[in-house]
Amino acid sequence: MSDSHIFFGELIGTAVLILLGGGVCAAVTLKRSKAEGAGWLAITFGWGFAVLVAAYTSSTLSGAHLNPAVTIAIAVKTGDWSHVPLYLAGQFVGAAIGAFLVWLTYLGQFNENDEPTLGIFATGPEIRNPIQNIVTEAIGTAVLCLLILTQGLNKELGLSGLGILITSLTVVGIGLSLGGPTGYAINPFRDLAPRLVHSLLPIPKKGGSDWSYAWIPVVGPVIGALIAGGLYNAAFA
Amino acid sequence: MSDSHIFFGELIGTAVLILLGGGVCAAVTLKRSKAEGAGWLAITFGWGFAVLVAAYTSSTLSGAHLNPAVTIAIAVKTGDWSHVPLYLAGQFVGAAIGAFLVWLTYLGQFNENDEPTLGIFATGPEIRNPIQNIVTEAIGTAVLCLLILTQGLNKELGLSGLGILITSLTVVGIGLSLGGPTGYAINPFRDLAPRLVHSLLPIPKKGGSDWSYAWIPVVGPVIGALIAGGLYNAAFA
Amino acid sequence: MSDSHIFFGELIGTAVLILLGGGVCAAVTLKRSKAEGAGWLAITFGWGFAVLVAAYTSSTLSGAHLNPAVTIAIAVKTGDWSHVPLYLAGQFVGAAIGAFLVWLTYLGQFNENDEPTLGIFATGPEIRNPIQNIVTEAIGTAVLCLLILTQGLNKELGLSGLGILITSLTVVGIGLSLGGPTGYAINPFRDLAPRLVHSLLPIPKKGGSDWSYAWIPVVGPVIGALIAGGLYNAAFA
Amino acid sequence: MSDSHIFFGELIGTAVLILLGGGVCAAVTLKRSKAEGAGWLAITFGWGFAVLVAAYTSSTLSGAHLNPAVTIAIAVKTGDWSHVPLYLAGQFVGAAIGAFLVWLTYLGQFNENDEPTLGIFATGPEIRNPIQNIVTEAIGTAVLCLLILTQGLNKELGLSGLGILITSLTVVGIGLSLGGPTGYAINPFRDLAPRLVHSLLPIPKKGGSDWSYAWIPVVGPVIGALIAGGLYNAAFA
Repeated sequence: MSDSHIFFGELIGTAVLILLGGGVCAAVTLKRSKAEGAGWLAITFGWGFAVLVAAYTSSTLSGAHLNPAVTIAIAVKTGDWSHVPLYLAGQFVGAAIGAFLVWLTYLGQFNENDEPTLGIFATGPEIRNPIQNIVTEAIGTAVLCLLILTQGLNKELGLSGLGILITSLTVVGIGLSLGGPTGYAINPFRDLAPRLVHSLLPIPKKGGSDWSYAWIPVVGPVIGALIAGGLYNAAFA
Repeated sequence: MSDSHIFFGELIGTAVLILLGGGVCAAVTLKRSKAEGAGWLAITFGWGFAVLVAAYTSSTLSGAHLNPAVTIAIAVKTGDWSHVPLYLAGQFVGAAIGAFLVWLTYLGQFNENDEPTLGIFATGPEIRNPIQNIVTEAIGTAVLCLLILTQGLNKELGLSGLGILITSLTVVGIGLSLGGPTGYAINPFRDLAPRLVHSLLPIPKKGGSDWSYAWIPVVGPVIGALIAGGLYNAAFA
Repeated sequence: MSDSHIFFGELIGTAVLILLGGGVCAAVTLKRSKAEGAGWLAITFGWGFAVLVAAYTSSTLSGAHLNPAVTIAIAVKTGDWSHVPLYLAGQFVGAAIGAFLVWLTYLGQFNENDEPTLGIFATGPEIRNPIQNIVTEAIGTAVLCLLILTQGLNKELGLSGLGILITSLTVVGIGLSLGGPTGYAINPFRDLAPRLVHSLLPIPKKGGSDWSYAWIPVVGPVIGALIAGGLYNAAFA
Repeated sequence: MSDSHIFFGELIGTAVLILLGGGVCAAVTLKRSKAEGAGWLAITFGWGFAVLVAAYTSSTLSGAHLNPAVTIAIAVKTGDWSHVPLYLAGQFVGAAIGAFLVWLTYLGQFNENDEPTLGIFATGPEIRNPIQNIVTEAIGTAVLCLLILTQGLNKELGLSGLGILITSLTVVGIGLSLGGPTGYAINPFRDLAPRLVHSLLPIPKKGGSDWSYAWIPVVGPVIGALIAGGLYNAAFA
């Protein structure tokens, strides 16, 4: 893989991921959307299929990490950290573009908005407690990363083939099972970049961007990725 | 592929697509249907599995485009536009037949109808704004077409094998995530041909066919297909 | 395949099919079931996964037809009707055993029953009209059989591998899209054998077995199978 | 497979299984969870995808039995019982760890709990009748084990590849169709180990652990596994 393939693969893939993932949150919560009130099953399948579409789209370019936690877990496994900054750069720019596209897709609905909209872009806890919230995010991310590490990663160290379908259904499962307390960021940039975009977008009555919580869905998933990588090296290698 | 295989493959496949896709809309909205009120998840999975059944049925004949946007995106990728008219002809006739079969399947329910029925056959926006509606349709179609182009298309330049399953789950995902504002036509003939059939069918109190909106789910998806083809050639080729 | 493999494969597979298919109807409709009121999505996924479990279980023995309509459509395709009676015999006995196992699984719930229970065992129309009901059943069955015929059937002329997953999701799709008017028997013995068992079981206040409708979910699917077989031979062979 | 691979594979896999399976029960039933009230479809897909994640994670280590009933059914098929104790040891410890992780993930919600919580950890019948409950559990487990035995088990006698996806959708199907009366343990340690952990955890107002029922989801699944193994050897071998 060339550097350009990695950067643009992660950029395009993560843009699709956040467009579809943020999109389902918009679809279910905004007024005058056909999916309003479709509920938790719609959100969890929507995010899972967002991973599916995004990863199959970008897999041949960059191996479809689309998540700094996945990139870190793979680096722990392989010991090769040289491409990590490039992956993260593509992911962050892509996530921001994806959040912008959510706004564009639902522009009519956003223009009529009269309620807080942060939940469409970023996660938040039901019960605010930094340690507990970090533990929840770390556990969910560790499950995701361990599953990915145990799949046959291709020689370029990313996902492909049936492994992507499995990973996307895994994301549905993590959402259904572990998403209750914090809304399962399990991906630092899935939360951070759209939160930044939310703070910049001209949405009426959009509410605050809750920056005091922003570090938790970064730190929790990174801890989870390190645990998964360590556990993999101890038990599976 | 012979011309006859292309034409009849697209005709049969698109007929199945619209029969099942229109069928789930009929199932969920008509009175005295066992699925009445089954909701948005039923509609989005119903359309996704409609793609699955239709594409696996017709794949060996024509490569299962079943959608002018897909045909156009593939033509942009390959530079070969010679078969485009044949694909489109089969798709349009098939979509019209499929819409007729929806009516036949639900004839008893349609005969007792007393509410507008256009939503079973064609899409409509929650907030009517041509530019916004075109943008929404273009984004959804671009996601679909980019995913298809990045799958390993077989040598006959169509879908096959696991790629069809992936594409059909992608359609579920696009519905869940991007379908809120306009009902996700993402296919010009999925909307146009059934709208025409709706205008002709003898359904009591069927309501109007809203021809003023009919150009939007044609133009939006074509723009999306061109964007996807161009992006593919720029970043993936 | 030996005759014994065909008979017992179809018997075991169809028993599992009806156990799980009838089971989801019992789960959703009986009082004091944890799934009471789970709705149409639960029923359609339940029947689809019933096909999945049943067909993967019996595939290596008999090719997993599990449905006289499938057996007939394959016979039309191949021109070989010699094994049809054996397939049908296994299917009928298996379907009856499956219906009995539904009763056994939900025995506590059935013993406290105080409402009509035929819907757990057999289908019925929302609007009773023999011609319309036959048309609906024929269309649904034709979609199913055409999909199966176009899959790569193995050399023993039955389903295997990914084809079974596709077929089971097809059954989910047919249920969602075409099940509204009649409850989609799309399989003569799925309806007839459990209806017979229902008429024999000692369920309190079980209600009638509606024998006047019983011929429709037999004739409709057979017509659909013949249409699918003929269409396959005309357009795909 | 080395003994260490078997033990730690089963331990890790079963921990993931119970974390996600118990997790979805916590998600749907605890107050101040985003998934509260998501319903039976969420629970059944949550458990099915719990199997998917757990089995793909541990498949290369131990073949992913994750269930004493599966281990017993395979032993009946192969006649080799030598590794059974090792499998069971890993499964029991893993199930207990998984239940502990459910508590950790939902610690904030559990700390505010004011209702009985046993249903998050263990199963219970809607209508209490030992014989009926055993029959229901035995039938569900027999369907699961027969499906697993008929899949191409790899040479190490466990699940791999597409077989895991099929098995996890089978668990969704068994839940939807046969879970109504008893909540489908279909796995002795899925019930016993979390019940034990429930009795030990410091959850306010957690309610009793209903030890009088605890033997039924052990005995029923073991009977089902023996039936499936015997039926397999009689009809499929």
